[in-house]
Amino acid sequence: MEDHIRFDDARQELHLLDQRLLPTEERIVVCRTVAEVIAALRTMVVRGAPAIGVTAGFGAVLALARLVEQAPGTPWQTAYAQALDLLAHARPTAVNLHWAVERMRRCWQQHSQLSAAELLPRMLDEAHAMQREDVATCRALGQAGQHVLADGQTVMTHCNAGALATAGYGTALGVIRAAVEAGKHIRVIANETRPFLQGARLTAWELQRDHIPVTVACDNACALLMGRGMVDAVVVGADRIAANGDTANKIGTCGVAMLAQAFAIPFYVAAPLSTIDVQTADGSAIPIEERPADEVRQLGGRPVCPEGVPVYNFAFDVTPARYITGIITEKGILQPPFTASIAAALSARA
Amino acid sequence: MEDHIRFDDARQELHLLDQRLLPTEERIVVCRTVAEVIAALRTMVVRGAPAIGVTAGFGAVLALARLVEQAPGTPWQTAYAQALDLLAHARPTAVNLHWAVERMRRCWQQHSQLSAAELLPRMLDEAHAMQREDVATCRALGQAGQHVLADGQTVMTHCNAGALATAGYGTALGVIRAAVEAGKHIRVIANETRPFLQGARLTAWELQRDHIPVTVACDNACALLMGRGMVDAVVVGADRIAANGDTANKIGTCGVAMLAQAFAIPFYVAAPLSTIDVQTADGSAIPIEERPADEVRQLGGRPVCPEGVPVYNFAFDVTPARYITGIITEKGILQPPFTASIAAALSARA
Repeated sequence: MEDHIRFDDARQELHLLDQRLLPTEERIVVCRTVAEVIAALRTMVVRGAPAIGVTAGFGAVLALARLVEQAPGTPWQTAYAQALDLLAHARPTAVNLHWAVERMRRCWQQHSQLSAAELLPRMLDEAHAMQREDVATCRALGQAGQHVLADGQTVMTHCNAGALATAGYGTALGVIRAAVEAGKHIRVIANETRPFLQGARLTAWELQRDHIPVTVACDNACALLMGRGMVDAVVVGADRIAANGDTANKIGTCGVAMLAQAFAIPFYVAAPLSTIDVQTADGSAIPIEERPADEVRQLGGRPVCPEGVPVYNFAFDVTPARYITGIITEKGILQPPFTASIAAALSARA
Repeated sequence: MEDHIRFDDARQELHLLDQRLLPTEERIVVCRTVAEVIAALRTMVVRGAPAIGVTAGFGAVLALARLVEQAPGTPWQTAYAQALDLLAHARPTAVNLHWAVERMRRCWQQHSQLSAAELLPRMLDEAHAMQREDVATCRALGQAGQHVLADGQTVMTHCNAGALATAGYGTALGVIRAAVEAGKHIRVIANETRPFLQGARLTAWELQRDHIPVTVACDNACALLMGRGMVDAVVVGADRIAANGDTANKIGTCGVAMLAQAFAIPFYVAAPLSTIDVQTADGSAIPIEERPADEVRQLGGRPVCPEGVPVYNFAFDVTPARYITGIITEKGILQPPFTASIAAALSARA
């Protein structure tokens, strides 16, 4: 599953597997403009922090490709800078989106003497490199993290931090895949993850295709399953990790982490270093996206609330660092205290 | 809302508001036989421990009414005893079901010399009395409990422990209604309560009709809402309370209670004394119903999981007594240690 974000170089089109329709339908959304990419991100055709980053990289390519089609000599730099700004703000919480757009912007700055047409192949190479590197990062992360899982264990995960949430292989599911590839028998409990049901729809779909045993549970079964000893470890992804280790991830993650600690179950976050935002001191500074009420109010087009009843639809929550056993990255597992281990990992990368 | 369980004495029919279709449709299911009542309980046309009890009372009436229609002289006692046994086991967790059927059985024993036809009006009176008493109990419980809520507070509730879950007025929602009737401004957060969505569909519907402000949230938003200081108290119902205070209630309740304690938010159980089962020493002895997988796998008839993926669908969980601030009953608020306060309350009643 590495073709759900596929850039067609010849046609200059971005082909996205529409994650809203899985598992019942596999439909491709074709984007030819950056506006279409922004819309696809906003409406969650693609979701998952690393996948959002990779998609944005190709969005930056499309923005330039359309500017190249203008009459020769037309100024394009201001329009392109604006397009990159808009792209970077398509969604507020995942820092990988900003990180990816900044990387594309740096590539432009490094070739600022080029015309739009000359720049385009460089930007395309950069976006493809980002996509390849994301898969490699996930595989390295999986290798680094699979040691925390023992043969025969059952792992709970929340939302989808799998191949679909990345360029391929996955972060949390990458750890599970690497453990399985190492010969361990691992069972997975996928929290269904309301309201968008990424666990029931996407995580279960991915793992079923890989023949990794997966059972879906409603989010609110967490305490029962943990209390009955049915969960040996929790591994989740992340949308943004603050400098102190506080971690924004899909709504519900914080509750899972708190319950895991109460039941003495290890709770791991699996994320590439690009998910860490040292500009954000702690979780209180991470913006939490609020999404449309109808995502909660309707299911399959059918209302499940009385008309006019207000809803809360926060898309993410922040898990305080004290509930996190370790942060699994492509450079190894960061241990508490995270302020020190994060700083060390990032300075080693720099 | 006291007519959702309505026995038509003239037609000898039980009319049940189909809670599966709310809030989009108000349809009545008519039961003429005890088998139809058992099916209605199993498929959750009616749910909520006190409502199940009241429905079972009328189920016992219908079983007898159909036996009365046999040819005169036909033996009926064995068949009736069997029908009551089947009725008592329609669902396993709510003790009110057993309690109600036992009450009907005692009524029969007290008139064991009567013919079926002579017995029928006595049983009908008993079932009607049980229904009236349940509303009165809820109102007394609400009065006893409303003092725990202060003007301006926001109360989280899980599932539906409202008028629809009882003969009327409700237990947890009875406490909220009594606080509102006392002039307090109370806001409610209704956890949507997967998979059956009793919170989104039923609690929101009831409170909206009563003009009590209610906001629906996905179950997994609990830690975020509590962490942001948006929840002042939690009040939930109960399906069975063990002698030590351990409380079985809708799946997810235990997690809410544990998170409430972590955030220092008071967590109350509101239930009539008939919900307490002193035969059950602690929560480990309470049977937890597992329901059909498709309740989780499908939403509005549309699959939300890949075909063939297994699911966990435990309908209830057990909240250990140590997470419970108080148990609100029609005889006042029981305080920890619950083994003593429960024993005292039940001996005072006896």
